[in-house]
Amino acid sequence: MTHPTPAKSVRRRRGEYAKSAITRVAILDAALEVFAQSGYRAGSLRDVAARVEMSEAGLLHHFPSKAKLLAAVLDRRDDRSRQLVPLDDGDPASIIRGLVRLAASNAATPGVVELYCTLSAEATSADHPAHTYFVERYEYVRATVEQAFTALQADGRLRNGVSPRRATVTTIALMDGLQVQWLLDRGALDMARELRNLLEDYVDIDWSDPHEGAVIES
Amino acid sequence: MTHPTPAKSVRRRRGEYAKSAITRVAILDAALEVFAQSGYRAGSLRDVAARVEMSEAGLLHHFPSKAKLLAAVLDRRDDRSRQLVPLDDGDPASIIRGLVRLAASNAATPGVVELYCTLSAEATSADHPAHTYFVERYEYVRATVEQAFTALQADGRLRNGVSPRRATVTTIALMDGLQVQWLLDRGALDMARELRNLLEDYVDIDWSDPHEGAVIES
Repeated sequence: MTHPTPAKSVRRRRGEYAKSAITRVAILDAALEVFAQSGYRAGSLRDVAARVEMSEAGLLHHFPSKAKLLAAVLDRRDDRSRQLVPLDDGDPASIIRGLVRLAASNAATPGVVELYCTLSAEATSADHPAHTYFVERYEYVRATVEQAFTALQADGRLRNGVSPRRATVTTIALMDGLQVQWLLDRGALDMARELRNLLEDYVDIDWSDPHEGAVIES
Repeated sequence: MTHPTPAKSVRRRRGEYAKSAITRVAILDAALEVFAQSGYRAGSLRDVAARVEMSEAGLLHHFPSKAKLLAAVLDRRDDRSRQLVPLDDGDPASIIRGLVRLAASNAATPGVVELYCTLSAEATSADHPAHTYFVERYEYVRATVEQAFTALQADGRLRNGVSPRRATVTTIALMDGLQVQWLLDRGALDMARELRNLLEDYVDIDWSDPHEGAVIES
């Protein structure tokens, strides 16, 4: 009678974890496409499963419900945003430049933009499973961006007559609204350029950071 | 054997038309609620019919398909917008003031805002039945607003350094983006006020029109 050695067992488990992680990523990619195209309500787990050549039961082994799958898709998008908008490097101008970098990056990932646009609109209904997520997300984003504008005001880099709160609400609204117009007609506008134009009216910061600035050149 | 007189027949037909018109309006109100809450794809004709205490077959007698019903809901919304934004009174400033009036009016009709917000996002998918409607609508609105800014520039009422095209794209994006934030948290902002603040950065016009201005006082 033989026993697997601990080393072999660990190897096998690691292999299983790795395989499972790859499957999860494939499911999340498929879910993003389905929810982006059909919305959460009309998008079905069956469609997601079909795209990864899985049964619905197999998919539910990785994500126990449609709502949990949606939450994982949104978390993944947030991780990406956090990488693009640095919150803790000490210079509030980095956050403002990060927003423009995010807009430029979004232009390269229409599926993610469509997902966000469709879901945030759907989730304005109080009974939507992502309603609380979006309410809290907007509160958080407004607080973060307002803090950056307030810090810029404190060291004289916010233009006279601009209030940090107003600049915040307008900046976020512009980012969201540009996405709708851009998704409907990608040739009509350059999201990063339009956002930067607005921000240049509000703040007097250095835009030429060689590392960060490269992304938004058009 | 009696025949209905022509006069009686006409009266009856008129009565039927009036009743049918009332039913159509009730269906359009119900459809607006259902599409606003669930979107077009997930919103069902059955739900719309139930709200007006009708069978689905009865509803299809008034609107032969779900897509036709959607088109009628959108047409009705457009009629309302046209009443608020005068296109032909000769003064381009009227259009700009009209946009602010529209934003103020929207704040009183959250169902209409939710409908528009959800549908425009859903319809960014090329296979959505309202895709062409929204693509063309944005083209038309952009052309109209740009024309107004261009006319204001010609008589020196557009601020230096502002391009009519840029002001147009930004104004429309702001209106759309404010709707998402407002639907998620109505206390967070005043849509008309934020829009007017942005427009005051672009144009130098008389805002105090006693007839038009009354609506947006907060």
